[in-house]
Amino acid sequence: MDINKFVKLSLGSWRSQRSAHHLAFGHFEEVTSNIDIEALAIDDERVIQLCKTHDIEPQQATSPFKMSWEGESDWDEDETMSGSTILVPIPDIENLTKGRLLREQGYAETIPSVGEYHIGEDGTFLLITKYDRAAAEEKIWFATSNLRFRVSLIKTSDGKGVTTASFSSEIRSFKK
Amino acid sequence: MDINKFVKLSLGSWRSQRSAHHLAFGHFEEVTSNIDIEALAIDDERVIQLCKTHDIEPQQATSPFKMSWEGESDWDEDETMSGSTILVPIPDIENLTKGRLLREQGYAETIPSVGEYHIGEDGTFLLITKYDRAAAEEKIWFATSNLRFRVSLIKTSDGKGVTTASFSSEIRSFKK
Repeated sequence: MDINKFVKLSLGSWRSQRSAHHLAFGHFEEVTSNIDIEALAIDDERVIQLCKTHDIEPQQATSPFKMSWEGESDWDEDETMSGSTILVPIPDIENLTKGRLLREQGYAETIPSVGEYHIGEDGTFLLITKYDRAAAEEKIWFATSNLRFRVSLIKTSDGKGVTTASFSSEIRSFKK
Repeated sequence: MDINKFVKLSLGSWRSQRSAHHLAFGHFEEVTSNIDIEALAIDDERVIQLCKTHDIEPQQATSPFKMSWEGESDWDEDETMSGSTILVPIPDIENLTKGRLLREQGYAETIPSVGEYHIGEDGTFLLITKYDRAAAEEKIWFATSNLRFRVSLIKTSDGKGVTTASFSSEIRSFKK
């Protein structure tokens, strides 16, 4: 498994069930959402801009994509959460299983982020992103080509404590 | 990481938050429980009996343990779910990262089971158990020495479809 294959497998529309565990309080949160993942052209202006923001040559990018989501939490049923972001993998030279992932808008904080990814021998995609006041760790893996799982941890900035752990089951609803 | 170290890290009492995703219906289930994991002596009569049930020499066993749980589901708040089981690892000769796990009482069906385990390079314990009408896959890993995560899948017997995916966050409440 390399980053190009992983992104290709991820393209399409997904129906997601997400459970968040707020560990200090033992609280559960349930989120249901639809996620769309679509490929972007390597010369898309938004991809080039994001690379430039991080002083990276756009030629180093591979398989850029856009992720959009629209969901509802049982904590606030009246409000729909929605958003979208551009993601651009920058693999290590000659090693597509490791590299950086540029993100227009981060997960734990809404500022641009750069994560470090690594794809393990079992095909699990691991992404670690450090923010000013927190760190995020995501593991994503495919059970079948139409079912993927995601475990996301929000950690304290030293990376030692975990404040929130969440688990998503994502079922493909439409292949692009 | 090998099986002896993994069992040792697991000993103690854990407070567990578990979310089950029933995939066909998009249902969520929330379970809160306390789990106790205690070491058993290698010559404990229950360990020897379990080995004999499976025609395995008891000398092949290592780090046997007992797991007990008591929990409540939001699907049936009036009833407490509780139980206990004996587990006996039988590592492959000269390779403690792979082997079989004997279980007095299975997860998906309440009959004795034998699973195949494998501990990956990142320390994740993977257990695959085949039953007559289903298969179970469990991944367990430690985020810190006091926090472990578990993803459990119930699969169709051919191992291709997933009917239920659940995620547990287990926080150590007491170290034995």
